[in-house]
Amino acid sequence: MAPAIRRLRIAVSGLGRMGARHANHFLHRTPKAELVAAFTPAENEVVWAKENLEPWGVKIYTDYDEMLKHEGLEAVCIATVTTVHAEHTIKAIEAGKHVLCEKPLSTKLEECYQILETAKRNPHIKVMCGFSRRFDSSYLNAYDLTLKGNIGRPTVVRSQTCDKYDPSGFFVAYAEFSGGIFVDCNIHDIDLALWYFSADSKGKVLPMVKSVMAVGVTALEPDLAKHGDVDNGVGVVEFHSSQIAYFYSSRMNAPGQHDMTEIIGTKGKLVVNSNPTTGLLENHSDTGVNREIPQNYYERFEQAFVEEARQFTAVVLDNEEMPVDLVSSMEAVKIGVALQESLRTGKKIFFDQQGNKMDDARARL
Amino acid sequence: MAPAIRRLRIAVSGLGRMGARHANHFLHRTPKAELVAAFTPAENEVVWAKENLEPWGVKIYTDYDEMLKHEGLEAVCIATVTTVHAEHTIKAIEAGKHVLCEKPLSTKLEECYQILETAKRNPHIKVMCGFSRRFDSSYLNAYDLTLKGNIGRPTVVRSQTCDKYDPSGFFVAYAEFSGGIFVDCNIHDIDLALWYFSADSKGKVLPMVKSVMAVGVTALEPDLAKHGDVDNGVGVVEFHSSQIAYFYSSRMNAPGQHDMTEIIGTKGKLVVNSNPTTGLLENHSDTGVNREIPQNYYERFEQAFVEEARQFTAVVLDNEEMPVDLVSSMEAVKIGVALQESLRTGKKIFFDQQGNKMDDARARL
Amino acid sequence: MAPAIRRLRIAVSGLGRMGARHANHFLHRTPKAELVAAFTPAENEVVWAKENLEPWGVKIYTDYDEMLKHEGLEAVCIATVTTVHAEHTIKAIEAGKHVLCEKPLSTKLEECYQILETAKRNPHIKVMCGFSRRFDSSYLNAYDLTLKGNIGRPTVVRSQTCDKYDPSGFFVAYAEFSGGIFVDCNIHDIDLALWYFSADSKGKVLPMVKSVMAVGVTALEPDLAKHGDVDNGVGVVEFHSSQIAYFYSSRMNAPGQHDMTEIIGTKGKLVVNSNPTTGLLENHSDTGVNREIPQNYYERFEQAFVEEARQFTAVVLDNEEMPVDLVSSMEAVKIGVALQESLRTGKKIFFDQQGNKMDDARARL
Amino acid sequence: MAPAIRRLRIAVSGLGRMGARHANHFLHRTPKAELVAAFTPAENEVVWAKENLEPWGVKIYTDYDEMLKHEGLEAVCIATVTTVHAEHTIKAIEAGKHVLCEKPLSTKLEECYQILETAKRNPHIKVMCGFSRRFDSSYLNAYDLTLKGNIGRPTVVRSQTCDKYDPSGFFVAYAEFSGGIFVDCNIHDIDLALWYFSADSKGKVLPMVKSVMAVGVTALEPDLAKHGDVDNGVGVVEFHSSQIAYFYSSRMNAPGQHDMTEIIGTKGKLVVNSNPTTGLLENHSDTGVNREIPQNYYERFEQAFVEEARQFTAVVLDNEEMPVDLVSSMEAVKIGVALQESLRTGKKIFFDQQGNKMDDARARL
Repeated sequence: MAPAIRRLRIAVSGLGRMGARHANHFLHRTPKAELVAAFTPAENEVVWAKENLEPWGVKIYTDYDEMLKHEGLEAVCIATVTTVHAEHTIKAIEAGKHVLCEKPLSTKLEECYQILETAKRNPHIKVMCGFSRRFDSSYLNAYDLTLKGNIGRPTVVRSQTCDKYDPSGFFVAYAEFSGGIFVDCNIHDIDLALWYFSADSKGKVLPMVKSVMAVGVTALEPDLAKHGDVDNGVGVVEFHSSQIAYFYSSRMNAPGQHDMTEIIGTKGKLVVNSNPTTGLLENHSDTGVNREIPQNYYERFEQAFVEEARQFTAVVLDNEEMPVDLVSSMEAVKIGVALQESLRTGKKIFFDQQGNKMDDARARL
Repeated sequence: MAPAIRRLRIAVSGLGRMGARHANHFLHRTPKAELVAAFTPAENEVVWAKENLEPWGVKIYTDYDEMLKHEGLEAVCIATVTTVHAEHTIKAIEAGKHVLCEKPLSTKLEECYQILETAKRNPHIKVMCGFSRRFDSSYLNAYDLTLKGNIGRPTVVRSQTCDKYDPSGFFVAYAEFSGGIFVDCNIHDIDLALWYFSADSKGKVLPMVKSVMAVGVTALEPDLAKHGDVDNGVGVVEFHSSQIAYFYSSRMNAPGQHDMTEIIGTKGKLVVNSNPTTGLLENHSDTGVNREIPQNYYERFEQAFVEEARQFTAVVLDNEEMPVDLVSSMEAVKIGVALQESLRTGKKIFFDQQGNKMDDARARL
Repeated sequence: MAPAIRRLRIAVSGLGRMGARHANHFLHRTPKAELVAAFTPAENEVVWAKENLEPWGVKIYTDYDEMLKHEGLEAVCIATVTTVHAEHTIKAIEAGKHVLCEKPLSTKLEECYQILETAKRNPHIKVMCGFSRRFDSSYLNAYDLTLKGNIGRPTVVRSQTCDKYDPSGFFVAYAEFSGGIFVDCNIHDIDLALWYFSADSKGKVLPMVKSVMAVGVTALEPDLAKHGDVDNGVGVVEFHSSQIAYFYSSRMNAPGQHDMTEIIGTKGKLVVNSNPTTGLLENHSDTGVNREIPQNYYERFEQAFVEEARQFTAVVLDNEEMPVDLVSSMEAVKIGVALQESLRTGKKIFFDQQGNKMDDARARL
Repeated sequence: MAPAIRRLRIAVSGLGRMGARHANHFLHRTPKAELVAAFTPAENEVVWAKENLEPWGVKIYTDYDEMLKHEGLEAVCIATVTTVHAEHTIKAIEAGKHVLCEKPLSTKLEECYQILETAKRNPHIKVMCGFSRRFDSSYLNAYDLTLKGNIGRPTVVRSQTCDKYDPSGFFVAYAEFSGGIFVDCNIHDIDLALWYFSADSKGKVLPMVKSVMAVGVTALEPDLAKHGDVDNGVGVVEFHSSQIAYFYSSRMNAPGQHDMTEIIGTKGKLVVNSNPTTGLLENHSDTGVNREIPQNYYERFEQAFVEEARQFTAVVLDNEEMPVDLVSSMEAVKIGVALQESLRTGKKIFFDQQGNKMDDARARL
């Protein structure tokens, strides 16, 4: 018996690592969504899709534009390589499809502006950048407590993204397109800082960046230097609102993925994932007490991705406001790109109260 | 487009608290299952089902026997009140349906035997008692490590089931049918002890109980005494295989649900949930560092229930062996019932090597 | 310049492992005590004392009775083998010396009575059994919170003493004199149960034991059976006051010493040392996150022993009440001995409200 | 009987909060030291000393120069206000006394140089700055593991010093002389970074600072701005050896003192005090699971201060090398002062490979 339920007809663009996961989430774990189509230009991904999606009634496309014409299609989840995020997002909006775009919107600020402009011209279309951590229950609890004033004014955010070391050299090749460690990894942390700091105004005012500064080293992968990138980065961001965020990212965390965040307020502090762990098991042996930690981002945030899919779906169906603000997502790219520039030049970079980068002469006044 | 996938057509019997959850799991979170029907005799549950299940194509029945005749039905998940578990299970088996029955199979040992006999007469039918903890990732990891010999020979199991205090008096009324705290709560812990101890023989040999002894108090609910029950119980079970399990159960845990288990071997110890927590958030305030814990069994084990549904479905579809052995599930009831008797009489109860209870005279030899 | 401070002149009897530590604590870490003498019959301990105590002005004796005559001696700390605890304690009391005696007072209940009688006849002499855990800051905090009513009525105590496995076979030889695992290890846990349960009456009423029951296995040291002992024991003690304590002890804990205690009340629970750790260091490596734990009892409780010495000294100097009640210390032995008997016979043992053991016939009424 | 033991005759200068503690440590908890004298210019401290030190044979002075002439005096522990650290240290060295000086040596770099020069001219005199954390067992274990190569090359150090909020306004008045939050609080963290990074060369090479950058806010105490100080500071220090340290300090940590450090290497990470706690007690109540944390620096590091006194004493008596290198202690001040300057000016500050600060023009090349 076919469901009499109104479900959102969605497609996934890109079936790589994250794309395949998104497809599964919409297909099997988002009751109110119906995955109707998927696009990938990669042959091996088409093979996977024929086996894993087609039998469930999902139509597979190798041409993105064709897919956008799929009958009844209402929304697209974009999980292609970062370099085409912007193009696919803009096309989808113009075709009248709601968009959930993987982070970052783009590694180029100009492209972010174009997305924003396109979205403004199509106000009935919902566009959200998929900052998955915002849908993790611990991060959500922290936000609710911050909103309620439990920690007073959120003043300092510390946040880190640390990947397990991958000896295959993957990160070096990846660095060519990733936008660099601050744009690829710390973009999550930057987004969180913007989110938690904005809780001070109940989410109404986005804090304005005042200065950024970054340093880094290539401890294990000297070849990263070719792309102006590092495997360990430290960044500090000041806001005009007397709030400070500082970040750490690493590609060499030995036990696995360790992302953590502290929101420090005038009356208290909320800490998410100070003690990383895979589950609730501890192993007492003659070497001491041991626990394992998630091996990658997905092991840590699987439920958050599922929740992201559910909330995106619900928001579109109910015509409500997107939980992640698009301007904030662009601001995150702006800060990430500036940190990357500071890393490269060794200079501290200043912004005026309107959000414009100040040249050296002005900054020195 | 309708899926071309072979899915298990399943029904849920009983739509109370757990029944409604099972229905949702099979409907939305078990891709290879298709929830086709549901039975409940309760009017308010019918209302819920009309709103939440029927629109998804699920047929609602108020007569269990009628539901068993639903066309194409292959399996039933039984989540009615414990007192009809056995009857529904036996009827389903005899109607040729595979069965996933909520724990315990029955609070009466005689009924467990009847289920077992019925199952033996219908060897092509899969029957599993839903000991959900066995599908929790931390418990599963612990089992794998035990199987691999990481802790040497599993020798002692400590396990507890502690519910948040419910001031409504619910537990008092519930005690009339629950079978008592050892049969209702510690049945999980008993099942775990049987499971982990059997890992010593790679799962081939179920340990044989040698003696049981229990004590308890009614600290907050003196009326429990009417049903011969307590709100805090301690039980100790010896096995003929020189293994010992000891249990604690409580109905008055202040912060919430705290179930935990230690598997102690000759070379190490595995501890599941020594540090209960809702998630990964800690709150640093002027009263110290605080974290919340799950408020009930479902908050703690939601993923395990989903995994249970998935594994049951996969096992039936692939015609493999059930992950929870039916004889073991009956043995758990036997031990639970004996603990309850020991609690009531104050006596230690002995069993011979064949599993028969010894009368006092023989036990004293 | 010699101090003008009034200090307690104390001697230590026995300079084995714990005796040498006690000597050091009184010599160097108890400002208001002056270690003036030490006794040991063992030649190697005399050598150690000549090197480590004599240069600090401590007189070394090889005859206990002679030491008791040391001019100005006011108190004795008894840390000899358990078998002479009672004899030394009684002699010291009769010589007018205050006594701090290592636990247990004796493994024989009759000897405990003799100590008690002797103490009663000499009411101006202070006698305390050194239950060191009572001087640990975490246990003390737990007691204060229990006294204040934070957890409501203390109802259930769970407590364990787990030693690191010693492959030398030491425990087997030791079992001949130790009194067995419940008298040697769990005596601490029994003492803690008596202490925390008595907090219900602000320390005025000692709970009366109603029944005891114990089981055990020899998992690694089958030779323990020669002495009627085990390397893993579980014991349960009921009190007439509707309070229950249950204990676990082990000689095979892989990572080190893990002693822990839960005090469970009608409104909350206090947990001491659920997460054993040597200090505040965690090691994140490619095998996960690891921490070490104390290797033995002294590593865990060193500060408690020092505090015990300080409090004993202060109490004698100020003529106040001993922090550990002597009757309670004897009751702990009584319960420990009964658990050991239950372990040996397999029987549950009952006590009447006056504290007398009931024979089987009476117990069965 | 007077000890026949060779003990170090030491005096304490300054009997304020830390001075009184140092006096007690040398008097009662450092067996091989003999506290013979103490100096304080403060009347209330003299009263305290008459009551607490004099009866133990300690001579009290109100003139520092007089105290230095105390017969037989061999060493001085300097715990006066920071502003006279340098003067007292230099005088003591010139009088032929070994010196343990509280941190920092001075808030003025010039004075640090003078101490260093004086020490060089008196090579037989031992001089150590009391960086107490280096004597904490967890920090020591982390150093040993780093030395052994467990974490590969130490590459990044994160370290924080967070004080409990003191609503009395103490910190504002204190800021006038403290040198600022980076010199007063993070000086410990800077010292630790120098220590752990130097482990890469087995302690032979001190890493050379390349750049420093700091930001901060006054979240609770706007009056700190009068002294150019903040109540929350973030600082980043690059070294020419491709190592990075980043620091956080706060005066508003709600639950108490939370100092923590991560040493991140190419193969692993050591974390000290990620989970602050007062002891081993957890409180499970209807608001969740709670633990307290130390209320101040001394509660956290008491044992480290005692160990510092013992090691200083042992090193002097045995004529060995001081565990904390004096050049490193001066370098810590240099970095702290530079961070403070960066905080004030908003500029990043650069140093050449010889350790000289570069002016803007050179830095921009």
